Amino acid sequence: MTNISSLGEFGLIRRLTADIRPQNPSTRYGIGDDAAVLNFAKDPHTRTLVTSDILLEGVHFNLEYVPLKHLGYKAAVVNFSDICAMNGTPTQLVVALGVSKRFSVEDLEELYSGIRLACDQYGVDLVGGDTTASMTGLTIAATCLGIVDDKQVVFRNGAKPNDLICCTGNLGAAYMGLQLLERERIVGEQDPERAQAAFEGKEYILQRQLKPEARRDVIAALRKAGIIPTAMMDISDGLSSELLHICGQSQVGCAVYADRIPIDFQSAAMAEELNMDIVTCALNGGEDYELLFTISQKDYERIIAIDDVSIIGYITRPELGCNLVTREGNEIPLRAQGFNAFPEE
Amino acid sequence: MTNISSLGEFGLIRRLTADIRPQNPSTRYGIGDDAAVLNFAKDPHTRTLVTSDILLEGVHFNLEYVPLKHLGYKAAVVNFSDICAMNGTPTQLVVALGVSKRFSVEDLEELYSGIRLACDQYGVDLVGGDTTASMTGLTIAATCLGIVDDKQVVFRNGAKPNDLICCTGNLGAAYMGLQLLERERIVGEQDPERAQAAFEGKEYILQRQLKPEARRDVIAALRKAGIIPTAMMDISDGLSSELLHICGQSQVGCAVYADRIPIDFQSAAMAEELNMDIVTCALNGGEDYELLFTISQKDYERIIAIDDVSIIGYITRPELGCNLVTREGNEIPLRAQGFNAFPEE
Repeated sequence: MTNISSLGEFGLIRRLTADIRPQNPSTRYGIGDDAAVLNFAKDPHTRTLVTSDILLEGVHFNLEYVPLKHLGYKAAVVNFSDICAMNGTPTQLVVALGVSKRFSVEDLEELYSGIRLACDQYGVDLVGGDTTASMTGLTIAATCLGIVDDKQVVFRNGAKPNDLICCTGNLGAAYMGLQLLERERIVGEQDPERAQAAFEGKEYILQRQLKPEARRDVIAALRKAGIIPTAMMDISDGLSSELLHICGQSQVGCAVYADRIPIDFQSAAMAEELNMDIVTCALNGGEDYELLFTISQKDYERIIAIDDVSIIGYITRPELGCNLVTREGNEIPLRAQGFNAFPEE
Repeated sequence: MTNISSLGEFGLIRRLTADIRPQNPSTRYGIGDDAAVLNFAKDPHTRTLVTSDILLEGVHFNLEYVPLKHLGYKAAVVNFSDICAMNGTPTQLVVALGVSKRFSVEDLEELYSGIRLACDQYGVDLVGGDTTASMTGLTIAATCLGIVDDKQVVFRNGAKPNDLICCTGNLGAAYMGLQLLERERIVGEQDPERAQAAFEGKEYILQRQLKPEARRDVIAALRKAGIIPTAMMDISDGLSSELLHICGQSQVGCAVYADRIPIDFQSAAMAEELNMDIVTCALNGGEDYELLFTISQKDYERIIAIDDVSIIGYITRPELGCNLVTREGNEIPLRAQGFNAFPEE
């Protein structure tokens, strides 16, 4: 008997899906990227994207501090983010819920109000789902469809040596928000009389944790600028883990500069307060839902004209490995220490 | 605070989704049928179908008697059945799993072998998914895509007075299989020394419970015969419940003859053995995944030439209500007593 934690989530998926070969002409690309790429059009250029995420109570969220409306919003947006990461536009969402008895109809209306707000904000149609009882907690399985032109679709496997590595926004904020919520939860348990949690001046990192956004603004800006990334994915498990995915699937190496990784001041202050290293948090924190992508050097002038995109390093030949270059100029191999859905005991 | 059981599954879904209006031109039909109908083709006749089902341990299956391979097969097939119920062809499947620590890699390989067997049998591509840890049991959320020509798509809302009501195969078998498994589980608990369960001569009802099939053979036969049903759905919650859905959405009534409801002899024998009324079981049992559909009377000659389809009644004007006509000729109003995912305490 093989313990799942000995393989990890990605090893497990590889083992379960290794020799799956698509049979239908409408399947252009199956397992292995942020979304599958399908072709339902007789017109040869329209592609349909499909992606699915499952969120489980006690693993992905804690209802002690996550409001149901925010949870619904997040469950939708993390799927939109996967569609954006294929350079596509999300169009339809299907949500399947498992709900235990402790939830009321009003609770589910709250959850749905968040799902629907996200759909409204992103112009996505909620087209179906399934709602059933659960013996335990709350389960949210969401599947998102989207569209993309076949000349625009971006996979994880196209990064080439000398390509520039870019990321959007800033990293580590969602993780610092989670640390803050966890700290306040524990303080609240120890001192139930306390008037309210100490969230002042930390609103940004809270929002990054509780109400993430998909970077369709950057997708639109890239399109407007005529830039098609050579590889792209969204940062859900931490920068290190995602860089290793892109480099692995593209069969290249990378050098990422620690002092180029964009970090918000609230994240840095929170890390300071908690005695944590913010670069480590940015590398391994996860849930930022920013985009990580690589572009050809010829696009340099065009990329620096786009707001909220940082160039953090470059792609190398595979034999050079995947490295973080510290402020002192030392190279440290990147390791995937992101969110582990199957922790060892 | 409103208890979910006071609304029931369908009341809950109606309340949560009542005023959702699609915005995208690619969304042709959203919530309210076996699958949503989308149009990703510039060509105006190709429609994409999408449907989702979630199966939760302790609610939808009991691993004490359901082998993981069968469970995987069933999780896939119930989605294929929804696509068939739109008169479509399933093409792609996405599976999201939540898995607790008590499962090994080999367990998941068993589950996947069933999913993959179903995909192979039905010519469907497994194109993606998500696998994550669960704090509790096993959760399987599957989403299926399919295709259908827009002239062929069949909704629940097109039944007209005088249409014939048809169903495929036989009903109540899956429910009797479940009763048998439950009885043997209890007997096994009371007498662990017993050599083996008493399944001989009951293989058919067991198979109907453990390894259901989607009736794509009937969909193909209908197409070959040039019959497009006026309304159709698959029978997952029991004949009564599904008839009420079709009549409600079509704004018609119906008369169904008890002695026309097709029942297999193993189901009848099992009901006899358990002192249950087999017609009641066929009406309310659920999980048969047969097709329920209505056709125009002009198609009568063509439908009787198709194997394994029974005409069980006819559609009436709405003011006549939805009734079961007993062997004695009495009319009894149909009630939805099918599988209740939200039972009252």
